Amino acid sequence: MKTSLPLLQLLLGLNLLSGLASSDPDPLQDYCIADTKASQSLFINGASCINPNSATSSHFTTSALAKPGNTSANRFGFNVTLANTANLPGLNTMGLTMARIDIAGNGLVPPHSHPRASEVTICLEGTILVGFIDTSNRQFTQTLRPGDSFVFPKGLIHFLYNVDTKGPALTVSGLNSQNPGVQIASIATFTSKPTIIDEVLEKGFQISGQDVGKIRRNLGG
Amino acid sequence: MKTSLPLLQLLLGLNLLSGLASSDPDPLQDYCIADTKASQSLFINGASCINPNSATSSHFTTSALAKPGNTSANRFGFNVTLANTANLPGLNTMGLTMARIDIAGNGLVPPHSHPRASEVTICLEGTILVGFIDTSNRQFTQTLRPGDSFVFPKGLIHFLYNVDTKGPALTVSGLNSQNPGVQIASIATFTSKPTIIDEVLEKGFQISGQDVGKIRRNLGG
Amino acid sequence: MKTSLPLLQLLLGLNLLSGLASSDPDPLQDYCIADTKASQSLFINGASCINPNSATSSHFTTSALAKPGNTSANRFGFNVTLANTANLPGLNTMGLTMARIDIAGNGLVPPHSHPRASEVTICLEGTILVGFIDTSNRQFTQTLRPGDSFVFPKGLIHFLYNVDTKGPALTVSGLNSQNPGVQIASIATFTSKPTIIDEVLEKGFQISGQDVGKIRRNLGG
Amino acid sequence: MKTSLPLLQLLLGLNLLSGLASSDPDPLQDYCIADTKASQSLFINGASCINPNSATSSHFTTSALAKPGNTSANRFGFNVTLANTANLPGLNTMGLTMARIDIAGNGLVPPHSHPRASEVTICLEGTILVGFIDTSNRQFTQTLRPGDSFVFPKGLIHFLYNVDTKGPALTVSGLNSQNPGVQIASIATFTSKPTIIDEVLEKGFQISGQDVGKIRRNLGG
Amino acid sequence: MKTSLPLLQLLLGLNLLSGLASSDPDPLQDYCIADTKASQSLFINGASCINPNSATSSHFTTSALAKPGNTSANRFGFNVTLANTANLPGLNTMGLTMARIDIAGNGLVPPHSHPRASEVTICLEGTILVGFIDTSNRQFTQTLRPGDSFVFPKGLIHFLYNVDTKGPALTVSGLNSQNPGVQIASIATFTSKPTIIDEVLEKGFQISGQDVGKIRRNLGG
Amino acid sequence: MKTSLPLLQLLLGLNLLSGLASSDPDPLQDYCIADTKASQSLFINGASCINPNSATSSHFTTSALAKPGNTSANRFGFNVTLANTANLPGLNTMGLTMARIDIAGNGLVPPHSHPRASEVTICLEGTILVGFIDTSNRQFTQTLRPGDSFVFPKGLIHFLYNVDTKGPALTVSGLNSQNPGVQIASIATFTSKPTIIDEVLEKGFQISGQDVGKIRRNLGG
Repeated sequence: MKTSLPLLQLLLGLNLLSGLASSDPDPLQDYCIADTKASQSLFINGASCINPNSATSSHFTTSALAKPGNTSANRFGFNVTLANTANLPGLNTMGLTMARIDIAGNGLVPPHSHPRASEVTICLEGTILVGFIDTSNRQFTQTLRPGDSFVFPKGLIHFLYNVDTKGPALTVSGLNSQNPGVQIASIATFTSKPTIIDEVLEKGFQISGQDVGKIRRNLGG
Repeated sequence: MKTSLPLLQLLLGLNLLSGLASSDPDPLQDYCIADTKASQSLFINGASCINPNSATSSHFTTSALAKPGNTSANRFGFNVTLANTANLPGLNTMGLTMARIDIAGNGLVPPHSHPRASEVTICLEGTILVGFIDTSNRQFTQTLRPGDSFVFPKGLIHFLYNVDTKGPALTVSGLNSQNPGVQIASIATFTSKPTIIDEVLEKGFQISGQDVGKIRRNLGG
Repeated sequence: MKTSLPLLQLLLGLNLLSGLASSDPDPLQDYCIADTKASQSLFINGASCINPNSATSSHFTTSALAKPGNTSANRFGFNVTLANTANLPGLNTMGLTMARIDIAGNGLVPPHSHPRASEVTICLEGTILVGFIDTSNRQFTQTLRPGDSFVFPKGLIHFLYNVDTKGPALTVSGLNSQNPGVQIASIATFTSKPTIIDEVLEKGFQISGQDVGKIRRNLGG
Repeated sequence: MKTSLPLLQLLLGLNLLSGLASSDPDPLQDYCIADTKASQSLFINGASCINPNSATSSHFTTSALAKPGNTSANRFGFNVTLANTANLPGLNTMGLTMARIDIAGNGLVPPHSHPRASEVTICLEGTILVGFIDTSNRQFTQTLRPGDSFVFPKGLIHFLYNVDTKGPALTVSGLNSQNPGVQIASIATFTSKPTIIDEVLEKGFQISGQDVGKIRRNLGG
Repeated sequence: MKTSLPLLQLLLGLNLLSGLASSDPDPLQDYCIADTKASQSLFINGASCINPNSATSSHFTTSALAKPGNTSANRFGFNVTLANTANLPGLNTMGLTMARIDIAGNGLVPPHSHPRASEVTICLEGTILVGFIDTSNRQFTQTLRPGDSFVFPKGLIHFLYNVDTKGPALTVSGLNSQNPGVQIASIATFTSKPTIIDEVLEKGFQISGQDVGKIRRNLGG
Repeated sequence: MKTSLPLLQLLLGLNLLSGLASSDPDPLQDYCIADTKASQSLFINGASCINPNSATSSHFTTSALAKPGNTSANRFGFNVTLANTANLPGLNTMGLTMARIDIAGNGLVPPHSHPRASEVTICLEGTILVGFIDTSNRQFTQTLRPGDSFVFPKGLIHFLYNVDTKGPALTVSGLNSQNPGVQIASIATFTSKPTIIDEVLEKGFQISGQDVGKIRRNLGG
């Protein structure tokens, strides 16, 4: 049985994911390596930086995307690992990030949006159904096999679904912000802290209060 | 009984709403008045313009926001009227738009996001519960009375709910794009055309296929 | 008789107004709530922020626009109240602001420009003559009644004049910067501190030194 | 006696000047050479371009800034010659322009602002008093001699005054837009076409209707 | 013997590569699918678009990155395949692109820069030495193995070298422009058409005219 | 004989030059005067600022461009003097800079690129051959005489060569970033610290290891 613990882990994962971004301000110097210590006391738009004289090659490299993420830590069967200013401080002010997305057999990256980025994903393993919805409520959908790429326009709801019941799937995405952020539509509406009041969800999804409660519980909220 | 007709109207309304925007490219001349005729044959990022020598004061003014919208045309009880390049062509390249939001008694602007804009709304009439969810899944919520303003950060899911059962509510919003766009989380996920396949919604909302069908029908999809 | 005190108050008001903005840098996180304390010791482009974990709903809301401003504090009969990072810290990095403009009977918001923003204003009360001048020296002008909106393109000189001798007028404006700034053409040219030397104003306005002195005194400089 | 003809010439000059710019959209290709023919039928934000295969070196060069402008064509004694997309089509999408400013003995570039650009000017000849007014109504002023540079922040009112009664002065300016635009405060307020109604100018400058008429006539309006 | 044919192919490849980009203007609608036909007659900053009503899923997907490029077509032993608006028209206005980089055993992507983009690359196969030079002339270098990522800051010279003499290497890169462009330092300086005059290269590289000729011939210019 | 000392001086000069920039983030206040003291302990994108109440006219002016630079300090015979936030702190956030370029008789500003700016240069003295290479490897070249201007598109390799064997040449450039940065192709590839490994240069320039060594020594690396 799924408990709410994996969801917490998912939410922590989301916090990392919220380390994604779009059409960021241009850099005003070669690089501005995120000062991971200062970032706990000084807060600005983006991150403050270390003295550029202290820059080393290691600030520009990461192995964070090398290993598959744990896709069994949440009820959806996916894991997003992100290069962000915490594990790749040289990324700060660069205006983009990369992510690896692991999806278990029949796993799903649920309908979500990035508030600050467009995304292009390239399928490396598996067979994935992807799609996005535009603001006229049209869905654009495609089945991706290794080598196929797909565009998710900025800020629009999209999903990635591993249609293979057995094997895992893997994609690598570029996003045009150092911190795109992510909101999963179901998680954000039903399990925020504190929760949105029931009337809003009853009306918004045209369901009963009981249904709201059930969905909320199932989603671990 | 709700039919799908009001939903169609809502969707048309959404098309208008999709006429909203964020941090647009800066103008390269005083104004670039949208050419509403050319816009049916020439498509660019934004809109092409009329000869600036043909500019008149009427291109910079609109009464589109003067009258309350029809809040009974959809099942949620709200109406958004937007100044956009169709009714206010001088808005093109200006990097912002204004909207009036009418909400019937107990009506709701359901949880939605603008892919290309931040928003500040000022309550002019009624008592409105507003809120947004951040990418760490925290909800920020407030009750607005006339004169109160609230910020909805760029791209994040938010809602406005008229907590007064009887009287209508009214807010005026500024959004920092000439075309912010809008996606209602429930409508986009359950009633897109074509619809997202059931498995994705079952998994994404942790509901049964029957539930998916019921929500879809209730939302008019 | 008007003394220079009201002018000082006007100038203080202008300082607030200078809390307006256009096509600001995009946000690199969900929000970056202005740290009103730090802003007295640390200065950057925009404002530094509080720890996002300390964010509360109150940071995103303000009643600053709820009450009419005092239109008798200056010789022009207007008052601009602005949502800015001081009274609405959640506005920081959001790329827009809202303002309420109160104008007494026959009052005037004198010809002015916003160095960093376009503006759309919606008339809520009264009858207002508005206009702007483009860089080819053409004037575009319109009479607004409640519900009518008008666009003032970025950086161009414009004015709002309450043509009703008795009743007050009210508009609400959106501006696409968190800090648009404002310069009133007459105030900036004739009453800056220190003042522009007489020769420049004599030549620039083709008036005598006596005229310069008279205008300066009348404007409270 | 000054007639209105020189003013017309000044205004034509302003039209050219309105060919200046600030923080323009970034280029999406190496160059996008303005199509000076198309620009009479197709209007967009900026200018449409010629086929890049037709690019030649001449598109990237101009002698427009080589010769002193005629400083006696207007009552102020200045002339601004600008590199713009008409005389330097390769400038389109490049995000900046250059201007040469000639000022006769005791001539003045009257208080003016650029709605879309910051400016840095370098004095090449003569002795020039320059200044700008910030939005708190402070004036910053300096006397420039050959080799001295000065910054005029974006959108703020500034002037350049040749304090030498005899010899001409010359500066070269960079502005960070391909089309900064210019508004001279006195010209825009007193001699627009059509003119701003007298009441607005009487109130705005605290002068009589007779004074408005006199200034307007003196300025050639 | 290498002939100039492979170089022509390389240059054609560079043309495609010049289909890369950085901090592009933000989109003003959900998508603006590049009109590959119109792009031969109408030229703007970026690309004009098809009627959004004609959008299909195929506009947002490509298999262009699926197959290894031919690394033997040039003397360096590399091939860059790029998703651009020609093979992925939905990419237009999205502000980023993806590229696959194939490098033969001991092959090299020679020192080059992207005039309009930062880049993050992730190594998928092989062992690659990468490095960039900053504007203080410091080199930052790293050996990447599968799963390792590296940042190349905007506009700076960098290279990728397959240090394995036998097997091929593969990386996937994200770049924050839809059209980053590329310039290989040696190719651009020694083999442009027409060529840079010898004196400039002799002085610039401190070599003899004979050396210039030899390098030029070896590079196929 | 040239020693490596002048090269060090050149590199220091390059460090200054790296004080150049392009399409910078827009300002969020009138000015944000670089705090030259804080800039040694606090690092952000751009520079932190002094209290705006402490602004003086001297912050907006500099004589740094008044005197010819020493063109004999490096083996190329040029000197670039730049207005940057160190000598002109009011430039911070303004989105542009100005530079003076002195070139000795037959001196050369070697092929180089600015990672963050487009440039327009105006020739004030001498006869200069200028050129740039686009990403299709085409060269655009022109001979400039006093008064002639030329555009160097963003990020592309370009050069300026004094074709007069005797007299010095002088140009003034505007660049659309407060910190454009510069990379000289030969210097960056052959004399970085640490140096790029020989194999990369041998392959990249199709020369022998001996040639690499010779060029490196000649360039002072």
